[in-house]
Amino acid sequence: MSEVYATRRTRLRDRCHAGGSAAALISRPANVRYLAGAAPRGAVLLLGEREDLLVCAGPPDERPAEGRPDESLRLHTLPGPGGGFLAIAAADLATAQGADSLAVEEHHLTVARHRAIGSVAPELRLADLGTAVEQLRVVKDEEEISCLRIGAEIADQALGELLESILVGRTERHLALELERRLVDHGADGPAFPTSVATGANSGRRGHRPTDRRVEEGDFLSVCLGATYRGYRCEIGRTFVIGTSPADWQIELYDLVFAAQRAGREMLAPGTAYREVDRAARQVLDSAGHGPGLPALIGHGVGLEIDEDPQLGPTAMGKLDACVPVTVEPGVHLPGRGGVRIDDTLVVRPEADGGPELLTITTKELLAL
Amino acid sequence: MSEVYATRRTRLRDRCHAGGSAAALISRPANVRYLAGAAPRGAVLLLGEREDLLVCAGPPDERPAEGRPDESLRLHTLPGPGGGFLAIAAADLATAQGADSLAVEEHHLTVARHRAIGSVAPELRLADLGTAVEQLRVVKDEEEISCLRIGAEIADQALGELLESILVGRTERHLALELERRLVDHGADGPAFPTSVATGANSGRRGHRPTDRRVEEGDFLSVCLGATYRGYRCEIGRTFVIGTSPADWQIELYDLVFAAQRAGREMLAPGTAYREVDRAARQVLDSAGHGPGLPALIGHGVGLEIDEDPQLGPTAMGKLDACVPVTVEPGVHLPGRGGVRIDDTLVVRPEADGGPELLTITTKELLAL
Repeated sequence: MSEVYATRRTRLRDRCHAGGSAAALISRPANVRYLAGAAPRGAVLLLGEREDLLVCAGPPDERPAEGRPDESLRLHTLPGPGGGFLAIAAADLATAQGADSLAVEEHHLTVARHRAIGSVAPELRLADLGTAVEQLRVVKDEEEISCLRIGAEIADQALGELLESILVGRTERHLALELERRLVDHGADGPAFPTSVATGANSGRRGHRPTDRRVEEGDFLSVCLGATYRGYRCEIGRTFVIGTSPADWQIELYDLVFAAQRAGREMLAPGTAYREVDRAARQVLDSAGHGPGLPALIGHGVGLEIDEDPQLGPTAMGKLDACVPVTVEPGVHLPGRGGVRIDDTLVVRPEADGGPELLTITTKELLAL
Repeated sequence: MSEVYATRRTRLRDRCHAGGSAAALISRPANVRYLAGAAPRGAVLLLGEREDLLVCAGPPDERPAEGRPDESLRLHTLPGPGGGFLAIAAADLATAQGADSLAVEEHHLTVARHRAIGSVAPELRLADLGTAVEQLRVVKDEEEISCLRIGAEIADQALGELLESILVGRTERHLALELERRLVDHGADGPAFPTSVATGANSGRRGHRPTDRRVEEGDFLSVCLGATYRGYRCEIGRTFVIGTSPADWQIELYDLVFAAQRAGREMLAPGTAYREVDRAARQVLDSAGHGPGLPALIGHGVGLEIDEDPQLGPTAMGKLDACVPVTVEPGVHLPGRGGVRIDDTLVVRPEADGGPELLTITTKELLAL
């Protein structure tokens, strides 16, 4: 595994040098983990001229979920609480290795820490690394995809078990807690994001936070959850109807969102523009008159963070590559009535490899529970 | 309630004007919530020359746990995803109100956002607000203390119920999950921080993250948990012994940590220097030879964040005021054997009001379970 991290750091170092910086300071936790194998609380990674250092406050957490620092990396452990202190120490270490310039993550580093580095190491020219690490993270290797696949299996299992239990009369909050417990029981590090359970008039709302509303006969019930497995986060969303006879409007709305989600999924291929995926799903909903209330994005990348590049939205620039995991998650919410969301995590694969790989395999038939 | 927030904003505005800034941009979520009553995801607060604005992406979350934006505040809702966009919009709005200077939270704002504000509103002079809001937050009003008190009651209840169940054979992870479920069952918004359950050789480690180790006869079991109630976070930590006959070393170590914790608690009075609280507890452990492995702090403030000012450590500057809630949480961990932590949340009160108010009332006798 060690080589994986060293290779990633080499790729980043090449970009840095091309940008004119001798050294780089990585502070965003998901980026640190990507390059170092672990991101102990507050740790920063220095890509130095002579050697790379993981600068942390205290010894790393040894739970498997937290990852293990790459053994080819030297740990530089400082006593006391972390925070800005570690970034300053790393800048000092960069100078000690002879660097005259340091690229930092300006989109993550605070103004105060940037200023502190400037005053502790005034001879260092500070440059912006931009989102170089985030861009490296977009295309996943098979090891990373395998973590996402296991996470998706865990989420499918947790959801499947919930569907076998009695739902009517239970609150959104309790159902969400139960799902999160099941995720952990099945081996997840934890939920990938706060589990959303929405029923009745709440159903279909993106990111709905569970309330004390109870599930009732005739409700739509929409659920969105995900597992974190070895740091990798996936998501799945499904909508069900409670009771044996869905109303006509429910069947119609479900079929519409299903068609939109399928249209989005079918666009997932290497070379397709991000915005084309969005457009394919969006126009199905738009042509049925649901355009104005739609969310800004139809899907997004997943990985060490639950919402990462690419962003599948109408103004997104760029094209899909193979081995990019994304969500496709259109939904419609009718205020006062409820709605439908259907959300999968898939990996973009070339046609020759069978096309997009669906990680979240729970059925998308409209189940009446 | 609305007046509370308006009064807080007036106090901050006075500080700002004294510092030469006409307007202020608050971006740190706990600070936004303190001044606005709620902090919708990504929202920033503008204290403007003519009016105050809460700038958010989309309508605020309506769950009671998220708070409710102060009604005397105008909501400025922007479409699309939040992030830096909102800070830039707020800077624009400050200019529209005629401000020529804007104080920002340099310890929270990223370099990239700061730069973006500078280029969108080049006529604005950007200053540093520093930790002015954090300093206002140190002394709590009775409404805030009442939220902490309810949170502490919830944590006491959750812990009490756990102690009535069978512990031997269960894993740290399952016990932690069960505690978190009980917190929510009793009305918490959620856990105040990741619940720590440590047994055997893990016991007594500060911030230990639960593993799959099972509780065994003869173990120390140390538990640290807290509830969030209406945004306010408290904590409690206790150590128990499993089985009927604690070993002599366990009794000795427990008595020592108990004595240290009591020494710290007894120092809590208005006017006492932060470092004196630390020293009182630390010297008890130090004189028994446990000095070198001790944590950097004996306690810290709690409120809208679980770790806020004051920091009760050996180099802290400042003195306690009345109505400051703090933790007192010494502990000793013997590598390979385990250890003891005892942690309470208390509110500093003058002697005439009965001295420090203990919020976490679970017994600190050494219970053999």
